[in-house]
Amino acid sequence: MNYKIVIRVLGFLLLFLSASMLLPIPFSLYYGDSDYIALLISAGISFLFGSIAFIGFQEKRDMRPKEGFAIVTFGWIVLSAFGSLPFLLSGTIPSVTDAFFETMSGFSTTGSTILTDIEILPHGILFWRSLTHWIGGMGIIVLSIAILPFLGVGGMQLFKAEVPGPIADKLKPRVTETAKILWGVYLIFTIAETILLMLGGMTLFDALTHTFGTMATGGFSTKNGSVGSFNSAYIDYVIIVFMIIAGTNFSLHYSLFRGKFKAFHKNQEFRFFIFLIIAGTFVIGIDTYMNDYSTIAEAVRKTLFQVVAIITTTGYGTADYEQWAVSSQVILFMLMFIGGCAGSTGGGMKVMRVFVLFKFIYSEIVRLLHPQAVVRVRIGSYSIDRKVMTNIAGFFVAVTLLSAFGTLALTFMGIDLVTSLGCVAASINNIGPGLNLVGPTDNYAFLPDAAKWLLAFLMIIGRLEVFTVIILFSPSYWHK
Amino acid sequence: MNYKIVIRVLGFLLLFLSASMLLPIPFSLYYGDSDYIALLISAGISFLFGSIAFIGFQEKRDMRPKEGFAIVTFGWIVLSAFGSLPFLLSGTIPSVTDAFFETMSGFSTTGSTILTDIEILPHGILFWRSLTHWIGGMGIIVLSIAILPFLGVGGMQLFKAEVPGPIADKLKPRVTETAKILWGVYLIFTIAETILLMLGGMTLFDALTHTFGTMATGGFSTKNGSVGSFNSAYIDYVIIVFMIIAGTNFSLHYSLFRGKFKAFHKNQEFRFFIFLIIAGTFVIGIDTYMNDYSTIAEAVRKTLFQVVAIITTTGYGTADYEQWAVSSQVILFMLMFIGGCAGSTGGGMKVMRVFVLFKFIYSEIVRLLHPQAVVRVRIGSYSIDRKVMTNIAGFFVAVTLLSAFGTLALTFMGIDLVTSLGCVAASINNIGPGLNLVGPTDNYAFLPDAAKWLLAFLMIIGRLEVFTVIILFSPSYWHK
Repeated sequence: MNYKIVIRVLGFLLLFLSASMLLPIPFSLYYGDSDYIALLISAGISFLFGSIAFIGFQEKRDMRPKEGFAIVTFGWIVLSAFGSLPFLLSGTIPSVTDAFFETMSGFSTTGSTILTDIEILPHGILFWRSLTHWIGGMGIIVLSIAILPFLGVGGMQLFKAEVPGPIADKLKPRVTETAKILWGVYLIFTIAETILLMLGGMTLFDALTHTFGTMATGGFSTKNGSVGSFNSAYIDYVIIVFMIIAGTNFSLHYSLFRGKFKAFHKNQEFRFFIFLIIAGTFVIGIDTYMNDYSTIAEAVRKTLFQVVAIITTTGYGTADYEQWAVSSQVILFMLMFIGGCAGSTGGGMKVMRVFVLFKFIYSEIVRLLHPQAVVRVRIGSYSIDRKVMTNIAGFFVAVTLLSAFGTLALTFMGIDLVTSLGCVAASINNIGPGLNLVGPTDNYAFLPDAAKWLLAFLMIIGRLEVFTVIILFSPSYWHK
Repeated sequence: MNYKIVIRVLGFLLLFLSASMLLPIPFSLYYGDSDYIALLISAGISFLFGSIAFIGFQEKRDMRPKEGFAIVTFGWIVLSAFGSLPFLLSGTIPSVTDAFFETMSGFSTTGSTILTDIEILPHGILFWRSLTHWIGGMGIIVLSIAILPFLGVGGMQLFKAEVPGPIADKLKPRVTETAKILWGVYLIFTIAETILLMLGGMTLFDALTHTFGTMATGGFSTKNGSVGSFNSAYIDYVIIVFMIIAGTNFSLHYSLFRGKFKAFHKNQEFRFFIFLIIAGTFVIGIDTYMNDYSTIAEAVRKTLFQVVAIITTTGYGTADYEQWAVSSQVILFMLMFIGGCAGSTGGGMKVMRVFVLFKFIYSEIVRLLHPQAVVRVRIGSYSIDRKVMTNIAGFFVAVTLLSAFGTLALTFMGIDLVTSLGCVAASINNIGPGLNLVGPTDNYAFLPDAAKWLLAFLMIIGRLEVFTVIILFSPSYWHK
């Protein structure tokens, strides 16, 4: 392991973090809050540690995958640790556990909160909280890919470890270009949604913070009642559209910008994603129309919003789905594990993996019927390599086992089964709200500290596609 | 598809069933009950249909895997249909749904019951109910392998489809011999347990019925309070030992009989199985000792019994584990899915598969670290073929998805989440008792008919190792 590279890159990330901590300050000043002081001190501390690490550890050698894994995982942990300083120093979240949980929830684009009253927080802190989503969303690391070459470090292996999902379409041969392109797409949608939300009557502050939460599929709101507080069909539908956009593979958006309109139609993952949204809304909607809402329009709006918020792993709310039928909640629970498309900011297992798993099961049946035949799993014209196939199956097994053990660990802390299941699903899939005591109208404040650390760990495991993190627990990673 | 062979074999199975229906009659007469009439009529009906099918459809051609799958699945269904006649004709279970559920629960060695009061049933019927376990346990089909050659049909492909677990150790080159040997081992243990239980004070009737339930890892008792009714430490420990025996690969027992004592020690699956039992008992036992029982001896006895009853998928009870901590229940729930060893009468995913899955996850990590290396998953000196590996992963994915969809379907019928989870886990893993409303002191009577049919379907899916059944739903099975 080349520790110098790792520390140097972590230092660079801290410098980036330090700069981003200055962004909320104008809002703090505009609204006459005093939290800009905490932000300034936090930026200073991050700058200090960042400079020491960045300047003190010069390294020109190439980075290997080993260092890539360490940088991705420790990068997220270090950013969450330093990113929690504004909460601690402003006194808005005095507990270290709570502050770390909230910040990891932000950077991992989960959106679970330990805050019981969001609206009393000063504006600079609220903006910082949402900004952690936006930074995490596209991935500080992915963003850094455009800058890593500047550090004398090749980043392809990092990209491989970071880009969500099994298939990283190579948009441009050079990674730097790819990262810049994805970042540009992300920025364009961010600006577009902010403007559209302001046209719906939101202030710049609310529009920006909710856009951050949408585009990162995060879910932090500045309102106690989440998006439902605005009580506007227009705002609901704008956010629905942008949640779907954020949950879609960004290379598809790039194709669109380049005029390739057929890309969406041809993409089997995207079609399956849209199918799941429509099917989920239809099945749940029938029930909510009959039992919860008086008009079809309202049932569609509330149900569609929730289905999209869950499958994209955003976690915004306009309705308390715990009032819906148990079967509807189970569907949402299943959608939590499916998640967004590969190459999106969404969490979960990714639509592509689930799609491939269904094809995989069918290929096993065909194999039983024709033991001598060579059975291939195809997505469109693309034949899935057997290694990728076993990797996807392994991913499914790992997520299931981690979820089971996570649930077990929580029940050992005296938490009931359904709440434990909900906590784990909402964390490992980076959603936010779960079931029972951590439902859409609740928060995570009441959990014991050990539970909060465990869930924060599940958030990073889920966000970094499981193996990136658990590889660090394998003895052979640290040997030689 | 060669329908003639299928129908002829099903006919043979009915003739076998007809003969076995005569076995409970002595008990009916001895106890002065009148249920022998229903048994005689049922045997007659089965004999009639069996003879027509067996004599009417002559076929000398070889059987292919296709027919094997059909015979296994339809064999189980036909036997459950005709096997429910004694319940219907005696009036002890008047509903067709309930009678089919109970019989499928018997033949699949699940042990779930729709009976609210077991002890009021006449002795012939009770004996028949337990006998369905014993017949199902080793597998009517496995038993038939010794007789299939007599029908002019080669049975190797059937054996492949039927023997539980991924690895079928070839004991003897000829399948017929293998079946005879396994049947002999099964019979020896059955006689031994019956004698040991009678030495503990049981009547021949109780000893036989409870032995049937043990050796088949079924779980039907003749008492409302299950094994707990006998309130005897000796009986508890005898049944614990024989549940472990029944949950162990029968080819290991055969090795033992042939003097190869090291076979158990060398077998990694068996060692992992024993480790899971000890670890589960230890972790749950600490909690039950502190909260539920006054002495260590009682805590060990009750906890060990329940852990063994669950992991072997027997489902007998001496304690109501729903009074234990939620974390203990989650451990039991996880053990439900692990199940017994491959080649045992136990259900679940099988210890071997779970063991291989853990190694598989680790091999994926090694692959990430050394992308160029050829990574093999080894069990002892045996290197697991990649096809077997993906098959095991596919099995895990299929069981998880079926469990999720099964749970969803039950919640649509208005059943709560935890009960639904418990029903599905207890059925697909062939255990019996589940969680909440279907806990160890409850029964399945209250469920709507649709739920009972669904659970009966999950029982056969689980018992026949999933793919044997779902292959029949694939269009390519029926084509050509």
